[in-house]
Amino acid sequence: MKLTILGCHSATPRWDAHPTAQVLEVKGHLFLIDCAEGTQVQLRRFKVKFARIKHIFISHLHGDHFFGLVGLISTFRLLGREADLHIYGPKGIKEAVLLQLKLGKSYTNYGLYFHELNSDQPQLLFEDDKLTVTTVPLNHRIYTNGFLFQEKPAERGLDVDKARSLNVEMSYYRKIKQGADATTKDGKTIPNEDITFDPPPPKSYAYCSDTAYYPTLVAQVAGATTLYHESTFLDKDHDLAEKTMHSTAKEAAAIAKKAQVGQLILGHYSGRYQHLQAFKMEAQEIFENVELAEDGKVFEI
Amino acid sequence: MKLTILGCHSATPRWDAHPTAQVLEVKGHLFLIDCAEGTQVQLRRFKVKFARIKHIFISHLHGDHFFGLVGLISTFRLLGREADLHIYGPKGIKEAVLLQLKLGKSYTNYGLYFHELNSDQPQLLFEDDKLTVTTVPLNHRIYTNGFLFQEKPAERGLDVDKARSLNVEMSYYRKIKQGADATTKDGKTIPNEDITFDPPPPKSYAYCSDTAYYPTLVAQVAGATTLYHESTFLDKDHDLAEKTMHSTAKEAAAIAKKAQVGQLILGHYSGRYQHLQAFKMEAQEIFENVELAEDGKVFEI
Repeated sequence: MKLTILGCHSATPRWDAHPTAQVLEVKGHLFLIDCAEGTQVQLRRFKVKFARIKHIFISHLHGDHFFGLVGLISTFRLLGREADLHIYGPKGIKEAVLLQLKLGKSYTNYGLYFHELNSDQPQLLFEDDKLTVTTVPLNHRIYTNGFLFQEKPAERGLDVDKARSLNVEMSYYRKIKQGADATTKDGKTIPNEDITFDPPPPKSYAYCSDTAYYPTLVAQVAGATTLYHESTFLDKDHDLAEKTMHSTAKEAAAIAKKAQVGQLILGHYSGRYQHLQAFKMEAQEIFENVELAEDGKVFEI
Repeated sequence: MKLTILGCHSATPRWDAHPTAQVLEVKGHLFLIDCAEGTQVQLRRFKVKFARIKHIFISHLHGDHFFGLVGLISTFRLLGREADLHIYGPKGIKEAVLLQLKLGKSYTNYGLYFHELNSDQPQLLFEDDKLTVTTVPLNHRIYTNGFLFQEKPAERGLDVDKARSLNVEMSYYRKIKQGADATTKDGKTIPNEDITFDPPPPKSYAYCSDTAYYPTLVAQVAGATTLYHESTFLDKDHDLAEKTMHSTAKEAAAIAKKAQVGQLILGHYSGRYQHLQAFKMEAQEIFENVELAEDGKVFEI
């Protein structure tokens, strides 16, 4: 999994601080997560091959996560896109986008599909043979979902040399990778674990923004390889976090710790802070493996 | 008049080529003309004191002139704006903005007034003691207006030394500046032109984008100090200009020449051209005083 941060700041876009958008590359997909104003510029700036994006996941309909969507959709049209585009987001997103396209007489010439969300329970949004994408209901001022991207367990690795030396029929290889015992040409059974090895464990990425401190989400993101959790405020502004239904860095770290994730990435910083290092320091009081999101930063998960 | 170009390129926003928005400072006002995606970032970048903007004029509802409006309106809210904001633009603009604010439960806490336009005749949009703003109906794929900003004639200049030496009552000064003859303390009449001088001629700025070649607009912008006229294409792509209802640099110059304006500013360049100088050269074959708009460039009119 490769995560590219296009923007990780809250509220208003500035020249050097872009609001939320990120791209997750996984198993041949390029998923766009949130789409603040200016996202299409950031996609070009960081050389993301954005024509490959076929699925866009919008957490909620605040401008700093959503106002760049209609522009990106329009640009795809101007660039002659033909591939379908799927948008997953809160109810109302379809009307907002289509109204603007209609006013400009700029309907797309490619398939544009909206998948509107209004459930407060986790929902499976996307599945293929290699991964699933599920909503993670969050707790914010308006209806908001995070998203959990989970690889499916890969097939077992086959020790081909050993299989050959044991005279295992090639036609069994597929089943053996799926866990079956092997049978040699002379009819002998060889236990699966003797000629296979464990595949790399499936990875998962959980995106949780925006949300107040919300331990309910722990169960869903437990064990995630990487958790991106918003941290709009530092601890000294805890009251503001509560009032605006955002989280502090410490709260993000508390979720990471409870969920026993591999790594925590912080982001969605309020513009009031000059330096971001304090976010990392405060979080590390509670959870060790913390990284700071920065515009343009790439994480290999 | 001081014109700041925030963006002057057509279609999709890029890191170094912003779509249309400009700020006109005149007689104490700061008018925003069009508001493409990223305009609020450009306002900050070029250090425009944008809290002073009270009137926004939107030519038409294509994304490259309009998609930054809702973000700017939201940012004004986040910055605690209290002053009223007036939006002038095509019918539908109100619904598009309010729907998005509603979805984000982000209604403004300042007065937001929409003045929706649908007339194909020039309309007076704004007037105070010093200037007027009028629509300039254009000819584009969707309903579009340019805008004409006209200073009112200033009062005549009074030669105060001469008035004193002639014993003119101070209480007449106001009327004299407005053109009345003077009366001395001993009852003698002095012709107005003997103690006044001509004020500087009123200036005017005409903004015409987007439009096909449209000589109808000449009558309205005749004699303007400065005309901004879109020139999306060069002459070799004249067929594209016709097809998309845009203008070439030569056509923009032809309008400037017919209207006998003082200066022509070109802009709204298609992204297909590497160098902009060709726009100026082609226009200058027809009209001498041509300038090229560039992002961040300031014109004193």
